[in-house]
Amino acid sequence: MTLLSFKDILEQVKSLPTRTVALVVAEDEHSQEAVFKVEKDGLLNTLFVGNRQAIHAVAGKLGHSIPDERIFDAENPVTAAETGVRLVREGPADFLMKGHLETAELLKPVLNKETGLSKGGVMSHMSFNEIPSYHKLLVTTDGGMMTYPTLQQKKHIIENAVEALHMLGCQKPKVCVLAAVEKVNPKMPETVEAAALKDMAKMGEIKGCVVEGPIALDLALVPERSEAKGYKSPCAGDADVLVVPNIHTGNILGKSLVEMAGAKMAGLVMGARCPIVLTSRGSSAEEKYNALILACAVCK
Amino acid sequence: MTLLSFKDILEQVKSLPTRTVALVVAEDEHSQEAVFKVEKDGLLNTLFVGNRQAIHAVAGKLGHSIPDERIFDAENPVTAAETGVRLVREGPADFLMKGHLETAELLKPVLNKETGLSKGGVMSHMSFNEIPSYHKLLVTTDGGMMTYPTLQQKKHIIENAVEALHMLGCQKPKVCVLAAVEKVNPKMPETVEAAALKDMAKMGEIKGCVVEGPIALDLALVPERSEAKGYKSPCAGDADVLVVPNIHTGNILGKSLVEMAGAKMAGLVMGARCPIVLTSRGSSAEEKYNALILACAVCK
Repeated sequence: MTLLSFKDILEQVKSLPTRTVALVVAEDEHSQEAVFKVEKDGLLNTLFVGNRQAIHAVAGKLGHSIPDERIFDAENPVTAAETGVRLVREGPADFLMKGHLETAELLKPVLNKETGLSKGGVMSHMSFNEIPSYHKLLVTTDGGMMTYPTLQQKKHIIENAVEALHMLGCQKPKVCVLAAVEKVNPKMPETVEAAALKDMAKMGEIKGCVVEGPIALDLALVPERSEAKGYKSPCAGDADVLVVPNIHTGNILGKSLVEMAGAKMAGLVMGARCPIVLTSRGSSAEEKYNALILACAVCK
Repeated sequence: MTLLSFKDILEQVKSLPTRTVALVVAEDEHSQEAVFKVEKDGLLNTLFVGNRQAIHAVAGKLGHSIPDERIFDAENPVTAAETGVRLVREGPADFLMKGHLETAELLKPVLNKETGLSKGGVMSHMSFNEIPSYHKLLVTTDGGMMTYPTLQQKKHIIENAVEALHMLGCQKPKVCVLAAVEKVNPKMPETVEAAALKDMAKMGEIKGCVVEGPIALDLALVPERSEAKGYKSPCAGDADVLVVPNIHTGNILGKSLVEMAGAKMAGLVMGARCPIVLTSRGSSAEEKYNALILACAVCK
């Protein structure tokens, strides 16, 4: 199945059971606005974790009232994050959303080996991009979480993306590991690792996808470019996922797609037992909405 | 002066003396097409270096005839490149264009310390991008030449870009050294070096420009983003030059601008005694034309 747009994901979510998010440090206008909007469409329930009074105050300001039993009192961000994680582990919540706290504060209890949500691999950030000049949704990863992934970590990054795409119905995603060139060059570790990842997929060490690399962005996304270059690959001109060498490249590529190519973007952290929504204050309302919808779609 | 488009550069070139390019290994249809087009507009003279017979044959095929005195016979790419360099050193040519040879073959005699065109710094690649969603020409550097520049090499990369922009009339270019974040993080060398480059500009070690960094792409290019973040810098939302950490990031960003954001692009190598045009077989006719015009504009 090919995902053409966020609307396709929205349609999927409409046919799924309603998911529940734990909003951690929920005394935050921007986050509450986002969850209320998806709740209004009947697609989400929210558990609000944080200072009860402050949560009520913010909701009131937005013209909403929250039943007391949906609020989980927590006196500070640390206990709020712990409570959010517990709500996922124990069942009532399906996934987490970051409210008014630091990303590191939220992730600390997530990463706790005994009481957290780790699955043993790595957690990584995926951006889903709906780009006017591309023919389907395009995932870029990782521009937000793993700073300088090793080969092994890149393998996990691919696996996290593939897992999410499988849940969205894309059965054999085409994964392109980007570099400046297609030729493996021992002086460019990015090309060596890209070729290794391609081999791992061929040998079945990375499953459920086709991996190509090293490959330049134009060959990954534009059929005319790969044809002109005589470059043959099932992934050429049709990538579902672009894997970048490090966080700077991912961040710069992602922002270039949004700011210069007019992409709509929604991000998600995968690799824990549940998806995690990490939108920021600066995220648009549409981005937050799409990120929540996306998280609903990729819950187990 | 603000450069809005390649047309602005074309207008400049029209008022300059006609430049002469040495086309190295000129028995190449694509390159000859490019120079003939600029010659036709009265803006260029070409010296054709390579196999005389083959050069005539290609020109004939394109419906042109080349006077014998404009052909410099060379029996192989090595001597052709040496001849091209000599033509620049001795005066008849103002700049070099790569024809049907490898980039490394062309650059070898350029880099020769005694007989070459080195100025002692580094040579670097600049892409000029005319992006529909940006308000002026935007330079990205270096996505084509320096693979993993050191701090000192990044300084030279900036100096090369600034030199070119000065010649184009942009007197104090705004240079943004990109990273994923604005905060200096000792675990991210890209941020440390970006801050160092900013300091070097402040202290006058890098002259004739304003340098900002580390800075994320959205803050460098979109005023609304920097305003929303309360980020203040003369460069914010108005960058002339984006400096990337390495060749992969530069290549991926450049291709994203061209393929996804619809940018027109023209590239140039700066840092030698003359600009060098390195377009490839895959470059569009428009790209080659703009690269030649650009080179004409930034000749000493």
